[in-house]
Amino acid sequence: MTELRVTAAGAGTLLRILRDGRPRTRSELASVTGLARSTVTQRVDALLASGLIGPAGEAASTGGRPPTTFSFRPDARVVVAADLGATHARLALTDMTGTVLAEERADLDIALGPEPVLDWVVDRGRALLDGAGREVPDLLGVGIGLPGPVEYSTGRAVNPPIMPGWDNFDVPGYVGARLPVPVLVDNDVNIMAVGEHHVAWPTASHLMFVKVATGIGCGIVSEGRVYRGAQGAAGDMGHIHVPSGAGRQCRCGNTGCLEAVASGAALAEALTAEGVPARGARDVVELSRNGSVPALRALRQAGRDVGEVLAASVNMFNPSVIVIGGALALAGDHLLAGVREIIYQRSLPLATEHLSIVSSTAGESAGVIGAAVTVIEHCLSPEHADTLVTRA
Amino acid sequence: MTELRVTAAGAGTLLRILRDGRPRTRSELASVTGLARSTVTQRVDALLASGLIGPAGEAASTGGRPPTTFSFRPDARVVVAADLGATHARLALTDMTGTVLAEERADLDIALGPEPVLDWVVDRGRALLDGAGREVPDLLGVGIGLPGPVEYSTGRAVNPPIMPGWDNFDVPGYVGARLPVPVLVDNDVNIMAVGEHHVAWPTASHLMFVKVATGIGCGIVSEGRVYRGAQGAAGDMGHIHVPSGAGRQCRCGNTGCLEAVASGAALAEALTAEGVPARGARDVVELSRNGSVPALRALRQAGRDVGEVLAASVNMFNPSVIVIGGALALAGDHLLAGVREIIYQRSLPLATEHLSIVSSTAGESAGVIGAAVTVIEHCLSPEHADTLVTRA
Repeated sequence: MTELRVTAAGAGTLLRILRDGRPRTRSELASVTGLARSTVTQRVDALLASGLIGPAGEAASTGGRPPTTFSFRPDARVVVAADLGATHARLALTDMTGTVLAEERADLDIALGPEPVLDWVVDRGRALLDGAGREVPDLLGVGIGLPGPVEYSTGRAVNPPIMPGWDNFDVPGYVGARLPVPVLVDNDVNIMAVGEHHVAWPTASHLMFVKVATGIGCGIVSEGRVYRGAQGAAGDMGHIHVPSGAGRQCRCGNTGCLEAVASGAALAEALTAEGVPARGARDVVELSRNGSVPALRALRQAGRDVGEVLAASVNMFNPSVIVIGGALALAGDHLLAGVREIIYQRSLPLATEHLSIVSSTAGESAGVIGAAVTVIEHCLSPEHADTLVTRA
Repeated sequence: MTELRVTAAGAGTLLRILRDGRPRTRSELASVTGLARSTVTQRVDALLASGLIGPAGEAASTGGRPPTTFSFRPDARVVVAADLGATHARLALTDMTGTVLAEERADLDIALGPEPVLDWVVDRGRALLDGAGREVPDLLGVGIGLPGPVEYSTGRAVNPPIMPGWDNFDVPGYVGARLPVPVLVDNDVNIMAVGEHHVAWPTASHLMFVKVATGIGCGIVSEGRVYRGAQGAAGDMGHIHVPSGAGRQCRCGNTGCLEAVASGAALAEALTAEGVPARGARDVVELSRNGSVPALRALRQAGRDVGEVLAASVNMFNPSVIVIGGALALAGDHLLAGVREIIYQRSLPLATEHLSIVSSTAGESAGVIGAAVTVIEHCLSPEHADTLVTRA
């Protein structure tokens, strides 16, 4: 290990301590870490040089010259975060607290394939940087959410059903060749769960974010991290069997899946068959806003079906918060009411006593905020904080 | 921080490195930790004095006197582990790898209340120590599994339905006053999951252990730790709703619960009503061993009902291993076959591709081994390994 690396390692640890925003003196940092005062001074100097911390003022003097305090500078670096849906994309520039500095939205078909779509992310990302008066060296990293299964460790989509050309495409490699920073990729529901956790439930130990839209999926944040399961397939709740689905054909090839009865696509189809034409989740929401009783009834029942599946997960995994989001959740509280009805009816008192079941707070920004937070947590993690200081 | 504590802190880290059993020289330990050779020597001396490591031989010489190697001594301390059921108790003495050195079993009614039951644990624990020629100072800790909900952080039972007098009783305080070592308490299914993971699936990232007996419960080991959920209520699968339970009254007050149709109690009741008298899980197992077709049919269907609940959890939480244990699992593969039938029918290919669904390997020892491993992991954790060396 070279002396420089040793210094950076220590500096990364100091950065992690200062990240809470509270200004501290060199003495306080020495006392918290148990490091020698001279070592702390050296590492504080490295952090000051990187711009990641700055002087914050003076502490009260105990006699003599008052000591300087230092604090984290969350705007020292920025993140480009993309939430790519089937036909729409959202892009944001954030600081290192996940606060959105600039944002834009575009119609963009994921089926165009990875290169044109990722070129858009890179080009518009550079434009957002420019617009904010920032440059590529200010970039901490790029976070991307994709509408399909992603192998998180490699950042590649795996057999994504609606993303022709993306299977196994090296997203971090392609984007990293154009923007030389860490590129983190995850599926859209996982980043929405991270964004919602960050915005509205930062202290929740176990959060489940359910996206009810054209399909149905769930992102799980457990003790501050995305819960992925053994093959990274956790949260695929759309194909869990529900009693009301008996015999109904699902696009997955099985019958009786939750998606076959409670997704936006299923609701639109059922309403159309009832003589209330609807082409998708957004039409169903529009109908419900206009007071269509069949649409309201369908949303309530969809909530009950989602609730059936969640009630079992509440007993099995005892979450502290369930957030209902996605396009169908925009239709007011009808969906949520159905979810609550079944969970409170079915689940054990101990598991529901402190359980919150709520609508999304982060709303349509949940995805980009989650993508940004994924990058920030990665770059400020114990394994990477050193690199960040060295890189500076 | 005193100098002694600093030394112990370092010694704990070395102990954790040596725990894999491989002998290492002082130079190797210096190279792995990045510590100065003199510091390593000091800490190795502290560990030798504690007896937790010993000289293991000599490494190949690179010229001059060959350097001594040191290795972990798993028998330097022992653990008393108790698995307390409703009417039976099992007690074991293990070394620090969880290997059982001595074991005994007794009829013991948990409803006698905490003091007589825990006095038995303490008295027989001392007797096991004696019998193995060990003394209380050799004791690493005591691990106890209880047949009801336990608040792990305090080691107290919380509203346990079948344990009169135990509610909120300070188990670690009572036992610790008699055996002055760390006392860890958890519920029986969690310790069985830990034991099974340790014995048969040490590298499995996400294991679910399902106990199908008088009641039905599940212990989850996720990335090496018991998954507890927000209120510690995770794994309570017995009261998840199943389609075949429609209208069936459960002892929890709800209807349609898994336990109301697939527990040993429910099967015995249903068989009795069919004219095949059975008083509980063990009678059902006995009938099935004698080839009773109604009993075999009932076990297969119970497996399907358990499978319904697990299929949903497979999609939602993507485990790598599901272990079926408990008294009903002793009836051969009929229960397991029903579980597999439904999980493979219902779950997504990605989630089942690498999923093992198996019978328990640790069998009736799963509980005591898990209780012992809980103690060992606690005492050798980064937070406590130092204390262990200081204590020595």
